Amino acid sequence: MERVAIIGASMTQFGQREDEWITDLLAEAGLDCLADADVDAADVEHLYVSNMASGEFEGQTGVMNALAHDLDAIPAYTQRIDQTSSSGGAGIYAAWQSVASGASDMTMLVGGEKMTHRTTGEATDVIASLTHPVEYTTGVTLPSFAGLTARHYLERFDAPRESLGKVAVKNHKNGVDNPKAQFRKEVDLETVLESPIVADPLRLYDFCPITDGSAALMLCPEDVARKYTDDYVVISGIDGATDTHVVHEREDPTVMGGVVESGRGAYEMSGYGPDDIDVAELHDMFTILEFLQMEGLGFAEQGEAWKLVEEGYTERDTGELPINTSGGLKSKGHPLGASGVAQGVEIYEQLVGEAGPRQVDADVGLCCNVGGFGNCVITTIMEAAA
Amino acid sequence: MERVAIIGASMTQFGQREDEWITDLLAEAGLDCLADADVDAADVEHLYVSNMASGEFEGQTGVMNALAHDLDAIPAYTQRIDQTSSSGGAGIYAAWQSVASGASDMTMLVGGEKMTHRTTGEATDVIASLTHPVEYTTGVTLPSFAGLTARHYLERFDAPRESLGKVAVKNHKNGVDNPKAQFRKEVDLETVLESPIVADPLRLYDFCPITDGSAALMLCPEDVARKYTDDYVVISGIDGATDTHVVHEREDPTVMGGVVESGRGAYEMSGYGPDDIDVAELHDMFTILEFLQMEGLGFAEQGEAWKLVEEGYTERDTGELPINTSGGLKSKGHPLGASGVAQGVEIYEQLVGEAGPRQVDADVGLCCNVGGFGNCVITTIMEAAA
Repeated sequence: MERVAIIGASMTQFGQREDEWITDLLAEAGLDCLADADVDAADVEHLYVSNMASGEFEGQTGVMNALAHDLDAIPAYTQRIDQTSSSGGAGIYAAWQSVASGASDMTMLVGGEKMTHRTTGEATDVIASLTHPVEYTTGVTLPSFAGLTARHYLERFDAPRESLGKVAVKNHKNGVDNPKAQFRKEVDLETVLESPIVADPLRLYDFCPITDGSAALMLCPEDVARKYTDDYVVISGIDGATDTHVVHEREDPTVMGGVVESGRGAYEMSGYGPDDIDVAELHDMFTILEFLQMEGLGFAEQGEAWKLVEEGYTERDTGELPINTSGGLKSKGHPLGASGVAQGVEIYEQLVGEAGPRQVDADVGLCCNVGGFGNCVITTIMEAAA
Repeated sequence: MERVAIIGASMTQFGQREDEWITDLLAEAGLDCLADADVDAADVEHLYVSNMASGEFEGQTGVMNALAHDLDAIPAYTQRIDQTSSSGGAGIYAAWQSVASGASDMTMLVGGEKMTHRTTGEATDVIASLTHPVEYTTGVTLPSFAGLTARHYLERFDAPRESLGKVAVKNHKNGVDNPKAQFRKEVDLETVLESPIVADPLRLYDFCPITDGSAALMLCPEDVARKYTDDYVVISGIDGATDTHVVHEREDPTVMGGVVESGRGAYEMSGYGPDDIDVAELHDMFTILEFLQMEGLGFAEQGEAWKLVEEGYTERDTGELPINTSGGLKSKGHPLGASGVAQGVEIYEQLVGEAGPRQVDADVGLCCNVGGFGNCVITTIMEAAA
């Protein structure tokens, strides 16, 4: 079986896109991806859309069919993929399956979400509806899970509060060099640590923003990829896994089972291990999540990720394993359905050498996209075609 | 590559399920499917949910992760698939891809929707949001497209109004023998023709109802299937395709391009043609759609499906090609995400000889699931393992 390749990528400006609707954002990323991959819309066989909640946010459904219309890609087969905040990673997995199964020789995945026209409260409420009712109906939201977990982590592993803040500082610094990022400004540790409390001990700068945006990837079998370009990327490993849907049922709140299981599957499929990863995009919806993913994926022992951050191990220009070179969800923004796709865009650009001022030396990269509070996670490992 | 097999199927009672929420309905079908296939939940690797709008109908998202919890299937990978009214067919295609790609050796697909707690107007409004805004904002809904198309068809092909009514009469008659159907009562032609006008010339009995319900299928590679049972079904061909998202842009309103294209793809993949099909489930959301699918799939020449219906060609016990032996969406009901899966359940039961009083003599069956007003269509061809 041919391996599955990625031959093009795009993302729109992330941020507050006042004049665009979800269909506009999807079309913008889709058109840019067609151009980047040099693929005609007529050659797209499957057109997949990662989007959590266009119906809830905008009262508009059928956005995948609207996209086929807008790109002039009809009669391409379309499908919308929802895996809550990991819809983008689920889209990569679905697109991989569509190519690997032989169903399609050219699949474009476009992820997107339009959120900023709703208040933060409204958006948080839509997102919270993904949790189990036994938790949701008590008023628990994802940020509150993050606060509870952060407190436990800091106390149990004797980690300084500053270490979490340093994740935000690092990712904001990286985001300055990403022209598509929502926030392109450095923040210092003091600013993070003195920002308003959201879910104690976490403060405003420990959280990603509400964002509009879209991102896209073009996937095809490797033999087809070679006809288009020499500079492509191969998906070496990919897997997804659920953890308990009721978060409080987890035996250890610092272990995200979905991260561990999906990472294990992706490593096994790729033949690579944690030490082989040169660059990673992790789902830093909350700063504490970057620690939990580093540990779940084997980049650090349990309770020790904070030390690596303190040591600068994950810095872009000087660290051994740069994490969130794109700026992460923290500075780039988190348009739900787009985020996992945009992680893939960053790793693709790093591996083909198109990351500009963010470029690091990397042959193998990894993305980890977290749905809910780890309720479902998708891990993808990519490598340069060489 | 191993072919993809179906080794188990289930559906809940369709109708008004006052005491159940979407998660209850999905869990009911899921548990029944596990039992029918004799598969342990722990052996399910991918768990896919077809559902259009749990967020819009119930304010509940993440239903695929809730299902993994309810079935005790964690850490199975989960994903929600939306293709509007053809979400169920899209789910069959996604589940097929998950197995055919080698990603999963056991994929359970559960489709479901909970709708009857909303008024017909509210439900119609959610469904209408799948159409292109240039049509939606003028007040056009799917039933109005059906009325316009029916008028055109009847006039252009000199077809009697009664022929449409006979589709409803046939499908209601079949539904009497389906214990899971929403309506188990025969209707006579006079009742159909004198029922209240909804979208002239179509009347109440030309339309499917608003329904709660769920259905499930268990898919795996054929070599795995053989370890479980000798009585399984193979997916011989499957394909999906879009037509113009703006319905009024179609050159011929009586030709559904998505039906034609997806049918062509499924026939080509299977090696079968229209004459090889022994039984079919078509998407009779509106009676006129049964004609358009019969013609698009090559069961009748353009403008002549009505003659076959008049001749009794599609009758269950006496016709050459029984259509909608389950009762169809018309009498069985149409819980959006469940309907395409339930079509697969009926064909599966027909092919393994478990259709009871509805049983026909069939080796090869076909399902056609229509999203929107043909905006995206999935056609699946199955055969008995034999």
